Amino acid sequence: MRTILVIGAGQSSSSLITYLLKKSSSENLQVIVADVSLELAKQKINNHPNGKAITLDIFNEEARRKEIKNATIIISMLPATLHIKVAKDCIEFGKNLITPSYISKEMKQLNKKVVEKGLVFLNEVGLDPGIDHMSAMQVIDGIREKDGNMLLFESFTGGLVAPESDTNLWNYKFTWNPRNVVLAGQGGAAKFLQEGKYKYIPYQKLFRRTEILHINNYGKFEGYANRDSLKYKSIYGLDDILTLYRGTIRRVGFSRAWNVFIQLGMTDDSYTIEDSENMSYRDFTNSFLAYNPNDSVELKLRYYLKIDQDDEVWGKLLELDLFNPNKKIGLKNATPAQILEKILKESWTLEKDDKDMIVMQHLFGYEVNGKKEQIKSSMVCIGDDQTYTAMAKTVGLPVGIATLKILNGEIKTPGVQLPISKEIYEPILSELKENGIIFTEEKMSYLGYNPENVVG
Amino acid sequence: MRTILVIGAGQSSSSLITYLLKKSSSENLQVIVADVSLELAKQKINNHPNGKAITLDIFNEEARRKEIKNATIIISMLPATLHIKVAKDCIEFGKNLITPSYISKEMKQLNKKVVEKGLVFLNEVGLDPGIDHMSAMQVIDGIREKDGNMLLFESFTGGLVAPESDTNLWNYKFTWNPRNVVLAGQGGAAKFLQEGKYKYIPYQKLFRRTEILHINNYGKFEGYANRDSLKYKSIYGLDDILTLYRGTIRRVGFSRAWNVFIQLGMTDDSYTIEDSENMSYRDFTNSFLAYNPNDSVELKLRYYLKIDQDDEVWGKLLELDLFNPNKKIGLKNATPAQILEKILKESWTLEKDDKDMIVMQHLFGYEVNGKKEQIKSSMVCIGDDQTYTAMAKTVGLPVGIATLKILNGEIKTPGVQLPISKEIYEPILSELKENGIIFTEEKMSYLGYNPENVVG
Repeated sequence: MRTILVIGAGQSSSSLITYLLKKSSSENLQVIVADVSLELAKQKINNHPNGKAITLDIFNEEARRKEIKNATIIISMLPATLHIKVAKDCIEFGKNLITPSYISKEMKQLNKKVVEKGLVFLNEVGLDPGIDHMSAMQVIDGIREKDGNMLLFESFTGGLVAPESDTNLWNYKFTWNPRNVVLAGQGGAAKFLQEGKYKYIPYQKLFRRTEILHINNYGKFEGYANRDSLKYKSIYGLDDILTLYRGTIRRVGFSRAWNVFIQLGMTDDSYTIEDSENMSYRDFTNSFLAYNPNDSVELKLRYYLKIDQDDEVWGKLLELDLFNPNKKIGLKNATPAQILEKILKESWTLEKDDKDMIVMQHLFGYEVNGKKEQIKSSMVCIGDDQTYTAMAKTVGLPVGIATLKILNGEIKTPGVQLPISKEIYEPILSELKENGIIFTEEKMSYLGYNPENVVG
Repeated sequence: MRTILVIGAGQSSSSLITYLLKKSSSENLQVIVADVSLELAKQKINNHPNGKAITLDIFNEEARRKEIKNATIIISMLPATLHIKVAKDCIEFGKNLITPSYISKEMKQLNKKVVEKGLVFLNEVGLDPGIDHMSAMQVIDGIREKDGNMLLFESFTGGLVAPESDTNLWNYKFTWNPRNVVLAGQGGAAKFLQEGKYKYIPYQKLFRRTEILHINNYGKFEGYANRDSLKYKSIYGLDDILTLYRGTIRRVGFSRAWNVFIQLGMTDDSYTIEDSENMSYRDFTNSFLAYNPNDSVELKLRYYLKIDQDDEVWGKLLELDLFNPNKKIGLKNATPAQILEKILKESWTLEKDDKDMIVMQHLFGYEVNGKKEQIKSSMVCIGDDQTYTAMAKTVGLPVGIATLKILNGEIKTPGVQLPISKEIYEPILSELKENGIIFTEEKMSYLGYNPENVVG
């Protein structure tokens, strides 16, 4: 019997563990789920005969090393910064390792040792990073096999609420860490390429420079630019590409309204608001507006940000109760971002029966035999419920599938890897398809940003 | 003969050294000017018989300690972070110290030792900080002596170009470190108080929330909020004040146009622009705008930032040659802020005969005997030339005056001090007046932000 040690039994491990348990008889597996919370681990095992829940404090070196030593293969679902501890033990005891997180600098530095030991450390094999890499590289490699030359690559991903649960004016609910949503886009300008020109968007304009995308059966979405588009040049081998853009998907209209928070200063996490605990929602909003005893907070805000009275943005703000003088913030020494997060959670938390939705779309522009073409590849995944969410499925299934492929020797090139080679992505994408995570491709003539080849 | 050691012979030391040399015979002084550049030190001494120029590397401990040990009193005109080295030597050798810079944490921690040794370490005795403290505290103490209760304190300072040299559409030239002008307002929200309400302005709105001020004979100015207004509560003992605001002065219209740079992202100093060296000014501007081969950079910018064709902001942008396709940036791996600084220097550098101007204005609102009143106190100082600039005079003269007052025992309370007590500010302000740095006071009925006492 082969033992899979899953470290971390948080929300994103549910689909992963269920997948592994389902395969456990045919694949002759024991699945050990380790977490600081034994209860959480037990929940995930759900009394399955091939599962075993154990309590494990990752900082307890002796316990951690013992479990890793005894297992056949290791999956780390820990917060990204903690993988490195597990990775070092895996080298020592000669175990393969799978994580859904970006390869850290420290992880990268282990590559030589990992290769020497003939091990596979497969990272970035969740959703984003993960499914994005695999689905993009499959198409890019296909274009290259036909001697095609890549001109454009745009890629968008978003975690949203499913259409049947989409009940508010923002068409948005928190399906993942709310804090990350509030802070999204901070910390530096977004950088990307359009038709050979480098473009830069500062935070204060990020949500006003959205791109529109269409997904069959699901309608229109918008995307705002991620900070890090340029690094995909080297990762995907797109050194001469003219257009390179990665973005985050929201429903149309979200970004324009979100920009109100940015302009007011409500997403700032760098200082605390005086007496935040005893403030009302209205006081909070008013603290970003000029003092005037005669004007209402509402009119001051509309005038300041030039919001027409019949603008849909206004309805979105009212829906959040931002002008309520009776609701208290109730958070001590809170930053604007922490207060905004609290206010948003009141409106944007999933109801018991709500489902989430993951949307991903890539655009590939290329020239083959003197002809310019474009492929649009889209994937939509809807959660089953609040355990098997779309997020848990799209993060956990590729991790689970990759683990079995490594265990069975189908994926075997040693090193600190990410899933961009055919050996890795082909079998994983193929099994993801069987599990309902399906990309639909459409071919069309190339558009780009300069279809008539004007010299600008 | 008493020896004054002036460490640092930069631009802001010219009026200081000339003042000390002028006093040297009557006060029986030798003035030693020490700088890494002997030439710079010699220029400042200008062959005066009571002056001596020496070369000194502040990081050469032996040389530094020797000069400090031999002097009677020390003035440090070094960059703010370097005072601490001098300060520690001054404690060891029992010398008084004067600096124009904000008291650093390290400097503050020396207070106990300074008091024990009976020394005076007087800091923040230049312009801002310096003259602002002294002129404000003189009025505030006067109000308190009449049992007045402070309601409002607003204070504005600006380094501008003199009216006779004001020849561009921005009504602005660099009269001080250009880099600080480009980065002004970054690093956190501006915080202040209006009528008892805390107010916060994020960077992206800072230059759109200006206050207007009037100065007799000089017309209208505008001020944008400084980051640090609230700290003056405790420094000036204004704990119960309702309105507290400090700002930076520009000519009207500057801030609205400067906001264009902020919105585009041109003031960002956190990343470098690809191939900045070979870019044209036009390319630089275009890198912050969406790609479009059919639209001009000009129209894209006007549309993006909603600038009407007859808006005066447009003229200001054209004046800077921001759309020139032939002028090259010529800076390797430059940040947007570094590039913008270079572009602005081309338009905003003082001509040979240009003069600078310092403008300061305080507003004091208070209640005395049940009556609310307001005092407006204004100071304008115009430079003589590009050696004895208004900046050099307003920074250097108070430092020089303070030094002689300490040397002669008129200012004697020991400790790490700033000039907010009567013992310090009275004699300095009185001698500044003789030197043409004069505050004009106007009394008027109180306005504040809520003159009719509306309960907002």
